Amino acid sequence: MKFEIVKIEVPKDCNVILGTAHFIKTVEDLYEALVNSVPGIKFGIAFCEASGPCLVRHEGNDPELREIASKKALEIACGHSFIIFIKNAYPINVLGKIKEVPEVCTIYAATANPLEVIIVETEQGRGIIGVVDGFKSKGIEKEGDIRVRKEFLRKIGYKL
Amino acid sequence: MKFEIVKIEVPKDCNVILGTAHFIKTVEDLYEALVNSVPGIKFGIAFCEASGPCLVRHEGNDPELREIASKKALEIACGHSFIIFIKNAYPINVLGKIKEVPEVCTIYAATANPLEVIIVETEQGRGIIGVVDGFKSKGIEKEGDIRVRKEFLRKIGYKL
Amino acid sequence: MKFEIVKIEVPKDCNVILGTAHFIKTVEDLYEALVNSVPGIKFGIAFCEASGPCLVRHEGNDPELREIASKKALEIACGHSFIIFIKNAYPINVLGKIKEVPEVCTIYAATANPLEVIIVETEQGRGIIGVVDGFKSKGIEKEGDIRVRKEFLRKIGYKL
Amino acid sequence: MKFEIVKIEVPKDCNVILGTAHFIKTVEDLYEALVNSVPGIKFGIAFCEASGPCLVRHEGNDPELREIASKKALEIACGHSFIIFIKNAYPINVLGKIKEVPEVCTIYAATANPLEVIIVETEQGRGIIGVVDGFKSKGIEKEGDIRVRKEFLRKIGYKL
Amino acid sequence: MKFEIVKIEVPKDCNVILGTAHFIKTVEDLYEALVNSVPGIKFGIAFCEASGPCLVRHEGNDPELREIASKKALEIACGHSFIIFIKNAYPINVLGKIKEVPEVCTIYAATANPLEVIIVETEQGRGIIGVVDGFKSKGIEKEGDIRVRKEFLRKIGYKL
Amino acid sequence: MKFEIVKIEVPKDCNVILGTAHFIKTVEDLYEALVNSVPGIKFGIAFCEASGPCLVRHEGNDPELREIASKKALEIACGHSFIIFIKNAYPINVLGKIKEVPEVCTIYAATANPLEVIIVETEQGRGIIGVVDGFKSKGIEKEGDIRVRKEFLRKIGYKL
Repeated sequence: MKFEIVKIEVPKDCNVILGTAHFIKTVEDLYEALVNSVPGIKFGIAFCEASGPCLVRHEGNDPELREIASKKALEIACGHSFIIFIKNAYPINVLGKIKEVPEVCTIYAATANPLEVIIVETEQGRGIIGVVDGFKSKGIEKEGDIRVRKEFLRKIGYKL
Repeated sequence: MKFEIVKIEVPKDCNVILGTAHFIKTVEDLYEALVNSVPGIKFGIAFCEASGPCLVRHEGNDPELREIASKKALEIACGHSFIIFIKNAYPINVLGKIKEVPEVCTIYAATANPLEVIIVETEQGRGIIGVVDGFKSKGIEKEGDIRVRKEFLRKIGYKL
Repeated sequence: MKFEIVKIEVPKDCNVILGTAHFIKTVEDLYEALVNSVPGIKFGIAFCEASGPCLVRHEGNDPELREIASKKALEIACGHSFIIFIKNAYPINVLGKIKEVPEVCTIYAATANPLEVIIVETEQGRGIIGVVDGFKSKGIEKEGDIRVRKEFLRKIGYKL
Repeated sequence: MKFEIVKIEVPKDCNVILGTAHFIKTVEDLYEALVNSVPGIKFGIAFCEASGPCLVRHEGNDPELREIASKKALEIACGHSFIIFIKNAYPINVLGKIKEVPEVCTIYAATANPLEVIIVETEQGRGIIGVVDGFKSKGIEKEGDIRVRKEFLRKIGYKL
Repeated sequence: MKFEIVKIEVPKDCNVILGTAHFIKTVEDLYEALVNSVPGIKFGIAFCEASGPCLVRHEGNDPELREIASKKALEIACGHSFIIFIKNAYPINVLGKIKEVPEVCTIYAATANPLEVIIVETEQGRGIIGVVDGFKSKGIEKEGDIRVRKEFLRKIGYKL
Repeated sequence: MKFEIVKIEVPKDCNVILGTAHFIKTVEDLYEALVNSVPGIKFGIAFCEASGPCLVRHEGNDPELREIASKKALEIACGHSFIIFIKNAYPINVLGKIKEVPEVCTIYAATANPLEVIIVETEQGRGIIGVVDGFKSKGIEKEGDIRVRKEFLRKIGYKL
């Protein structure tokens, strides 16, 4: 068994969501979960079929994001993994609906940070074992940092 | 720390679900989640208790599947992991209810494919770090593949 | 890429929950999920911000648990991971609400056992790849063990 | 305003589910929720569109149940209400997925009993105000009744 | 058809939850949902079976609350309705888990206020059509009231 | 007991959601559920406190919608009911998150149609017993109507 890194640069103003599911219907169900979540959302979805033709299955309502998702999924090439790029919406708006899709197993990341997907490859195939999402922690927030964080969340209207 | 593979061959007409939870009550709660999901479902469940006697706890309504689940769980031997084999039902029918079981943490796979469980072993014990579910992607689906996929999902009645 | 273990000793009468999310709002949302779950719960939460200042963000209603969570999160230092220590409540009481928090991606463990967090470190940063939760399985439960388990769950009132 | 009763006789081996939702997409989404729930389920769905042409929208995979649902929905005629008849499955198998459909507001009944739908009619239109589901309570169960109930649930495999 | 009021006085330090479900298994499933939610919770549950013997089915871990629930359910006597009295916990702690119980249809009230259950009775049986929960609104909160409300929620630790 | 109708005209490009919950914290929790759901959503929320000062509690990020919600809630005046007006988003985008708010009991309507709230008033107070949402059904859709409906849902991108 050997380990490998696939790097994902998230396009400007986009976010990426990486997870696993288990059926080619996943791409249509994820499509519907996303259009149900936010009016005006733009996205591309790709899913690595894990048997038969083993194709990267893809859907979306933005050709560019659909192409990026497809190419990155082929690079990842881990059976039953999926990758989604979204624009005009944030992961917080869609993650609940994605977790409820009946085929979805787990979510590895939902982020706008540079992402490294850590992959194991065996004779049989490939699997995700984890991700490096953004950067290493530098310290613990202090009183002043907490105040700034709270004010920021209230200023952008997420908290009262 | 060393890495190891446990191979799982899914019996004919069955599917396997692999995840983690955190309490011996898990086997009874998973039992109920499964009988609530599909009339006529047959299944075996096993859960790796992670403290005290560290036994593989098991339940089910099919003796054969219960035995396979127990043996495979003992081979995996990762604290708080569980494995379920189901027949007369598909993961899509049961995964929602399993994710809602209050002890369940995450789902690693739900599949009929050959599955490799990637395990880390330390002095303290063992843990799942990922799975190889089926096979490596071979290419991106083209227009014709998309048409066939959509027609197939509509022919088997999953989509309108 | 190199692998590393961070060891977590859970304080007496406490439990630890380890997972990933994706936004500094996570600490406030996890705070509310926990206070909504159990009257009298005591807890500390810490979350590894993965961009900008990359600080460990923390909240809680128990100064000691908040400090332990913060220190352990800094030791883990994996972008977008979170760690929670709870007292006067069990994971079974809070896990459902945590899984529903809109930023939460996955849960790696919910346990009172000694926990080893398996981490990958790359040039970019760090990521969780799995956990060793408690100890290795020692055998499969037999008829007598099953009877004891069932009686125990009924005696403590979890099952009828 | 006047009150009215619509009586529903549930066909043999069937169950009926009555609720409210808010969009013509409901019939397709309920269709998918049902096919995702149980392999071999047979059903008919009807939904009372509440604006524009105000048609009873219907879907299903069993022509007879689809027709019964449509006729009963037209008799009910309450804006945004839906009615589902299912066979080869029980409400317990499907209700969770129905409650998660994003358009669904509430569920009034899920039953095999004779059902009376209590309706208010105003100049503007009609609305469900409640249901009479089966029959009036006759007494409180005693020790012996409790024992029989518990044994029955364990005999049919719903509880351990 | 005639309308009737059943009055419910909630015992000191208790809350009542009123809803509908559809199966005698409901009392065991609600029992488990409640014990899973809060350590130390005390409660009584009663459910109006709507066919066959039409008994009030009951469970609980507090004999007094179980008796009150049973008596009130018999007074309500509406097929498939349930009533729960809880102590040492608040509705906010348990309502999520109750809504997830697979037999539960809807929740009419969760309150410590005096409650009036509005019931319709027909020749066939009885049904809940609504509740009067507490008292009529007296006015719209002003700036000062809002400030007091926010400070109160932060003082008792529900909000940050 | 007497019955009464409160009429709600939904402002242009808006939708209204009507339901019941059980705690003054509801207005803050609904606020957060809504801002988490759709970027750019505008809304007003009002909730009828049912004890103590019995004030209409309100929040929102659009002063006009907040005022309409407050006035309508006072007119409804049913203990523990809430009303939400939303703009720049549809009920389908927010209903899932609202149903998950821990205080929420049930949803009576989510609609852009004219809405009549049917209310019972007793000596104690007031309660919602149902709604007339839009208009009465005029007929059952035929083959041609079904085709138009399906094409419409696919044209606006909700289905594939």
